[in-house]
Amino acid sequence: MSKKLWGGRFKKKIDKDFEEFSKSVQYDYKLAEYDIYHSIIHVSTLAASKILTPQEAQKLISVLSGILKEIRAGKFKYDPACEDIHSDIQNRVEKKVGELALKLHSLRSRNDQIVFDEKWYCLDQGIDIGKIVTALGIAVVEKAAKSGKDFFIGYTHTQRAQIISFSDYLYAWAEIFLKDCKRLNDFCEGLELVIGAGALTGTALKKEAYQKAAEQFLRADKIKKSWSVLNNALFTISDRDFIVEFLSILSLIQMHLSRMAEDFILYSTKEFDFFDLPEEFCTGSSLMPHKKNPDFLELVRGLTGKIYGNLMAILTTMKGLPLTYNRDMQLDKEPLFSSVETVKEELKIMAKFVKGIKLKKENIKEALKDEQLYATEIAEFLVTKKKVAFKEAHDVVGKLIRYSEDKKKKIEDMDDLVLKTFHPVLKAGDLKKIMTPKYAIDSKKSVSRALPKLKKK
Amino acid sequence: MSKKLWGGRFKKKIDKDFEEFSKSVQYDYKLAEYDIYHSIIHVSTLAASKILTPQEAQKLISVLSGILKEIRAGKFKYDPACEDIHSDIQNRVEKKVGELALKLHSLRSRNDQIVFDEKWYCLDQGIDIGKIVTALGIAVVEKAAKSGKDFFIGYTHTQRAQIISFSDYLYAWAEIFLKDCKRLNDFCEGLELVIGAGALTGTALKKEAYQKAAEQFLRADKIKKSWSVLNNALFTISDRDFIVEFLSILSLIQMHLSRMAEDFILYSTKEFDFFDLPEEFCTGSSLMPHKKNPDFLELVRGLTGKIYGNLMAILTTMKGLPLTYNRDMQLDKEPLFSSVETVKEELKIMAKFVKGIKLKKENIKEALKDEQLYATEIAEFLVTKKKVAFKEAHDVVGKLIRYSEDKKKKIEDMDDLVLKTFHPVLKAGDLKKIMTPKYAIDSKKSVSRALPKLKKK
Amino acid sequence: MSKKLWGGRFKKKIDKDFEEFSKSVQYDYKLAEYDIYHSIIHVSTLAASKILTPQEAQKLISVLSGILKEIRAGKFKYDPACEDIHSDIQNRVEKKVGELALKLHSLRSRNDQIVFDEKWYCLDQGIDIGKIVTALGIAVVEKAAKSGKDFFIGYTHTQRAQIISFSDYLYAWAEIFLKDCKRLNDFCEGLELVIGAGALTGTALKKEAYQKAAEQFLRADKIKKSWSVLNNALFTISDRDFIVEFLSILSLIQMHLSRMAEDFILYSTKEFDFFDLPEEFCTGSSLMPHKKNPDFLELVRGLTGKIYGNLMAILTTMKGLPLTYNRDMQLDKEPLFSSVETVKEELKIMAKFVKGIKLKKENIKEALKDEQLYATEIAEFLVTKKKVAFKEAHDVVGKLIRYSEDKKKKIEDMDDLVLKTFHPVLKAGDLKKIMTPKYAIDSKKSVSRALPKLKKK
Amino acid sequence: MSKKLWGGRFKKKIDKDFEEFSKSVQYDYKLAEYDIYHSIIHVSTLAASKILTPQEAQKLISVLSGILKEIRAGKFKYDPACEDIHSDIQNRVEKKVGELALKLHSLRSRNDQIVFDEKWYCLDQGIDIGKIVTALGIAVVEKAAKSGKDFFIGYTHTQRAQIISFSDYLYAWAEIFLKDCKRLNDFCEGLELVIGAGALTGTALKKEAYQKAAEQFLRADKIKKSWSVLNNALFTISDRDFIVEFLSILSLIQMHLSRMAEDFILYSTKEFDFFDLPEEFCTGSSLMPHKKNPDFLELVRGLTGKIYGNLMAILTTMKGLPLTYNRDMQLDKEPLFSSVETVKEELKIMAKFVKGIKLKKENIKEALKDEQLYATEIAEFLVTKKKVAFKEAHDVVGKLIRYSEDKKKKIEDMDDLVLKTFHPVLKAGDLKKIMTPKYAIDSKKSVSRALPKLKKK
Repeated sequence: MSKKLWGGRFKKKIDKDFEEFSKSVQYDYKLAEYDIYHSIIHVSTLAASKILTPQEAQKLISVLSGILKEIRAGKFKYDPACEDIHSDIQNRVEKKVGELALKLHSLRSRNDQIVFDEKWYCLDQGIDIGKIVTALGIAVVEKAAKSGKDFFIGYTHTQRAQIISFSDYLYAWAEIFLKDCKRLNDFCEGLELVIGAGALTGTALKKEAYQKAAEQFLRADKIKKSWSVLNNALFTISDRDFIVEFLSILSLIQMHLSRMAEDFILYSTKEFDFFDLPEEFCTGSSLMPHKKNPDFLELVRGLTGKIYGNLMAILTTMKGLPLTYNRDMQLDKEPLFSSVETVKEELKIMAKFVKGIKLKKENIKEALKDEQLYATEIAEFLVTKKKVAFKEAHDVVGKLIRYSEDKKKKIEDMDDLVLKTFHPVLKAGDLKKIMTPKYAIDSKKSVSRALPKLKKK
Repeated sequence: MSKKLWGGRFKKKIDKDFEEFSKSVQYDYKLAEYDIYHSIIHVSTLAASKILTPQEAQKLISVLSGILKEIRAGKFKYDPACEDIHSDIQNRVEKKVGELALKLHSLRSRNDQIVFDEKWYCLDQGIDIGKIVTALGIAVVEKAAKSGKDFFIGYTHTQRAQIISFSDYLYAWAEIFLKDCKRLNDFCEGLELVIGAGALTGTALKKEAYQKAAEQFLRADKIKKSWSVLNNALFTISDRDFIVEFLSILSLIQMHLSRMAEDFILYSTKEFDFFDLPEEFCTGSSLMPHKKNPDFLELVRGLTGKIYGNLMAILTTMKGLPLTYNRDMQLDKEPLFSSVETVKEELKIMAKFVKGIKLKKENIKEALKDEQLYATEIAEFLVTKKKVAFKEAHDVVGKLIRYSEDKKKKIEDMDDLVLKTFHPVLKAGDLKKIMTPKYAIDSKKSVSRALPKLKKK
Repeated sequence: MSKKLWGGRFKKKIDKDFEEFSKSVQYDYKLAEYDIYHSIIHVSTLAASKILTPQEAQKLISVLSGILKEIRAGKFKYDPACEDIHSDIQNRVEKKVGELALKLHSLRSRNDQIVFDEKWYCLDQGIDIGKIVTALGIAVVEKAAKSGKDFFIGYTHTQRAQIISFSDYLYAWAEIFLKDCKRLNDFCEGLELVIGAGALTGTALKKEAYQKAAEQFLRADKIKKSWSVLNNALFTISDRDFIVEFLSILSLIQMHLSRMAEDFILYSTKEFDFFDLPEEFCTGSSLMPHKKNPDFLELVRGLTGKIYGNLMAILTTMKGLPLTYNRDMQLDKEPLFSSVETVKEELKIMAKFVKGIKLKKENIKEALKDEQLYATEIAEFLVTKKKVAFKEAHDVVGKLIRYSEDKKKKIEDMDDLVLKTFHPVLKAGDLKKIMTPKYAIDSKKSVSRALPKLKKK
Repeated sequence: MSKKLWGGRFKKKIDKDFEEFSKSVQYDYKLAEYDIYHSIIHVSTLAASKILTPQEAQKLISVLSGILKEIRAGKFKYDPACEDIHSDIQNRVEKKVGELALKLHSLRSRNDQIVFDEKWYCLDQGIDIGKIVTALGIAVVEKAAKSGKDFFIGYTHTQRAQIISFSDYLYAWAEIFLKDCKRLNDFCEGLELVIGAGALTGTALKKEAYQKAAEQFLRADKIKKSWSVLNNALFTISDRDFIVEFLSILSLIQMHLSRMAEDFILYSTKEFDFFDLPEEFCTGSSLMPHKKNPDFLELVRGLTGKIYGNLMAILTTMKGLPLTYNRDMQLDKEPLFSSVETVKEELKIMAKFVKGIKLKKENIKEALKDEQLYATEIAEFLVTKKKVAFKEAHDVVGKLIRYSEDKKKKIEDMDDLVLKTFHPVLKAGDLKKIMTPKYAIDSKKSVSRALPKLKKK
């Protein structure tokens, strides 16, 4: 059992099983960096408030900075005997400065530290994921740039609908990821960093002292983020909304990834056969020697369970909790870290994956022979050029297709005489012009087809 | 069976059970108003594109405006025989203008209509809920204003923690609702209204024509909302992210309500007995004559299941859906409407409920006699005024409390001699000053206690 | 405002909005039948306990039986002014027998009624859904019987894996539904019907009197269900576990339906083209005249959101509720009814849908030409007949396939000389025998292929 | 990169990031024991089928048994370089027996292994958790036995309802846990252990050979579980229903724990003050020296998020997956292991916690003075002994209580004259008899109060 930050009033020792059960250091060590931030700002505030002498403050900050360096160098190993990361760091400081460490936690509560740490973690991760989503979006856009005038097939209901350009298909994804970036950006901007909420009501140190210490720290660390005023300590301590918000955004991103995965899985089946997937992201079968499976895509699709589950977890945990802090809230960290880390991995690999996809143009070309893909264009032509009422045009084309299917006769092989039986204005010559991929795409005038505005940061 | 907007290629009639099963008019009628908006803008675009003559357009718009008036007057009754609201309105127009109605749906797809309708619904409801949350926040603030210098008890772990002012407690809620308003506002601003996506690839009508018609409509209807450019039709048709976003925000609001309900339920138990709940929101028991139950609060708390369930529903439905439109997406409406309507009801009643709560000051006064509530203040005093290291101060007070409990002796009754055994600087005179509610609150210097900026709209 | 079953201690009238908000009659009227059962058993118990005279009891039972008849004839219309179905029935009785009705609710609590009503509803619906799942399973089995020796393709990772018989494919579904029936059956058998729990602690009436009245009712109504002993009233009143259990089973069934839907959607794409879907369960597009969309299947897949959401709703609502009854529990009914009704509809239509599917044998035949489908059989042959170590055989076939792909040369066209370069024992003659669908299926000796034991009830 | 069980057809090496991303050995190592079972049965079947010589089989089984011993002794360390536990074990065998290991995986697929392993894991864990739930139930029953005739207060709506015995309260929990045991037991009995499904269609080895080998293994290992027939390999490979079932049961158990936690948290507040919680399961505050927080209970309540989230995760992952195996299904393991391990820990500690609770009888006694707790008994008395119609009795008592509250006069202090004004039959003498805890409890005749049948296994 390691030293605790509490205990004067307790007579009995903590139960061993419960101690293990209640520990969080095995995951909250990920917040070590931000906990040091808190300590540094706190020590400065204590010094400004004369609770610490300048010498004491300097000594503590020096030790804290040393630990910070260790963390940033990836050399920090948490002590599994500790209750949480706060206690772990407290103990480390004590080992270095002895008695003086007992003043570090003056007028401070872990309730304040943890919400501080988590917000800052969210801020850093939000920015980081924003960059990775951008990179994926750019990978998609670059793919589109290379695809030139390649055609593709647009689906609704997983049924062939209309001909599109491959770049339009890819730009749809770019738009999706662009919006995700915006969401992440708004989230980060909305995060309000505060300090000094104490256990729940604030502390005896002045808000101006905290503010000054925090701003000084931000400047020293070159962090472009404005510091917020602590209006209400009860609110600050009770608040885990930012985690719900973050996990909601990550759920949206995950949903997008699952849809992309589904599309790509379909396009790489033997039956669609539009995509040749990059082999280095596929695996084989231990029994069936011929298999090349889209495992990465399946895992991405499947991970939706985990990411949604994490959102549901934090929402459920927060349901009906009385103000302010309750120990239940410790359980916000595992779902947060799990979703952040998982989505990051997926996004990074997906960017590489997208680059590796090869469009099987021959197969697309073959599929484009399907005359039904032009049904909408024929109807639109009748309406715009021949003034046929739309419902009539729709019916005419529907019947034409049924006839073509029943008689197994291609529309392009029907002459004016046959076509006339469907509608007097239907002409073979017109159909020939209409029934090309280029016409299908060029005839769409309602879309701007602007390049999605994704910028590397 | 009512008229359908499709069917030329079909030989068999639709199965009766399936027809019922697949209908959405029984709920999507709620979008009628927005569907008319779409039709009006669409007709103007068709006229500008010479698909309709000015006379035809005028006739159609006149009929559509008539239906709109009916809807706004609350007199619109949907036709349960129809497949969906789009078909219902199409049929109504047909009844009025006959053949001409067949041109209304020219170059238009329900895929475009539905996403247009839903976004506009979200916009209106987002604004509306924002107002209601604001009203609740204001009710809370007004309650605080009336509470003057009333004291209250702050809890952590549902255990008494420190003394707070009742207005600080209420302001915490106001901060929460203020943030919810911000979320709703950001959501509404982020909604991009577009038109002309067709089934999935756009239409033959020019984007400039759509844009002009839309802006004209916004002006006529005095709607302050800028119109967005349709960049990518595939994206627009595939998109239900705004519904996930909205339901995420509503889940947060619901979580807040559930926490408020839990607090109020606790405070109204016979055991806490801090609140007298407004009787008109409570019910009795059919068997136990003495009961006065906090039913409203319990229902609010319980409704968390519904609101979270709705979020999970839309997320699950969207998981792994290939681009672009799939019929699965029809099922976005029920959870959307359910959450919007439920949360609105709760918020409205909660504002009245809050006004009706009476603080039982006598009982609070009694509770404030609990000396443990001053433990933190004593420790803080030792640190700030007597330069005791915090961990030592914490231990000293912990032991003092244990002693007081074990000996059943009040701290205020201990003299300097006794107090000295805990720490030489502990004096009865100091404790007397410290152990008052006013001192507890005034000694907190780290919070600004600013009035939450909620403004009626 | 309608008459309430409580209110003596209240001074203020209920708030109108709250009254509407808290009403449940608009959905719990579905329990009317079971609420009458409770009343009949209760009246008999009261009579046996001399609280009612035989005449009074007879009069009440006669009125109750009249209402029951109405309900069963589908003629019962709930009174929307009532708070809940219990109050509604109480009022009806009062209208018929006047003052005597005031004795009906003697020593009885709605807490007891509602759990009684819901359990019985679950029992009836559990049995009913069991029958419908069975019917779907039988539809599948009958389809298999008709499919004779039709071949099909088995997939893993949505990639072609091995050749199977179509009946094996269908039998897999039958096994799934068979298990679902077993789950429903176990659920129904586990339901313990009890009465007499009062508000939470039981009543002054003897358990023997309840037991006798209940058994008499079961006999009269010819219900084969044994009556359970009420061990602990607190448990009975607190319990909603049976609803969670039921919704868990329905979630499993829904998951199965979503997987079936996904398979069928895939098989009916233009690209797979294995299934011709029954047109009467498909719909078209309002813009694209050629579309025939698998809407039923998509709706089934999409409804997974609703059914999972309902499970999550009840679980969330029950989280952290103190014993015994809390008003939150009123909210168990909407998700229960929603899942029951939705799953029933889906199952019923799916049975018709399955019957209407046509296997496109020509397309399957074409697909079977894909030699990779025999890769596993070749490897197995090498292992079982030629004593090649499995990992070696797996490698050999993997390379053979890669060679065949790279050189665009069919394996069946390779002679012994070529084959020898992969492994000395590989012979063209053997491969010819192995590479047939019949061999592929017949060579599987580890499965019993027993007819799934689904029996109509 | 470690050796793979596949790869002959692949030209490119697996991407490093993807390899890490797709690994499962870091969690599926927990299935090592069961994977050895599969291998042992499989080797016996191969020997019986003459694919292996008796000597080869013996050698393999000897090596496998060695690894098994290591696992059971807790000395097994998985190799993080491996893809999964199947590959890890394969590699170990290869290190010991060289070439011969290449025959181990003959005619076997990881698809078959993994479902086999997971089912067996569920079986063992289901039995184990059953024992732990039983132990908790017994702890509750023993507590009840010791509580003798202690009284307690029953709540509805978190409002005082009626007087109960403390053992009745505890027995309610025992009933809940008893049911949970039954669910676990049914689940274990329903698990069908099978082998030989191959990748999806079965293998060339005879079902009789598998059956014999499996039964022999069960006998050797003294496992009392009958072996099931493999009817349909597609079904077996596709199936993860048992995991959903298990996680549903664990969600129910978790929900019960969250309710127990909530009750205990309430009872240990300063305001209720009915329970003295065992200090060794509580923690203090780093800032507030007086705090003794019910952390264990809060963590239990909060963990509901995790357990529900895990259920939601597996359900979401399985939604819409086509038959048969998809890589998504790899993601079933983390939620499974997480819920199993978490719930076990909670249950174990809760049993100790329950033992440590002390009922504060003095405080209960004080609370029992609340006369409203007898309201129901008075009404019941009027009905059963004085033949007052129930609704009238209910009203009378309601008014009596209102009067008592308004006038601040105790009912026991009212004389017949006053009482008569409420109802002529109300007598002070009767009320004196009725208004005792013993009468309240003894007057309940409808419950059997049987000892919950929990038996240590």
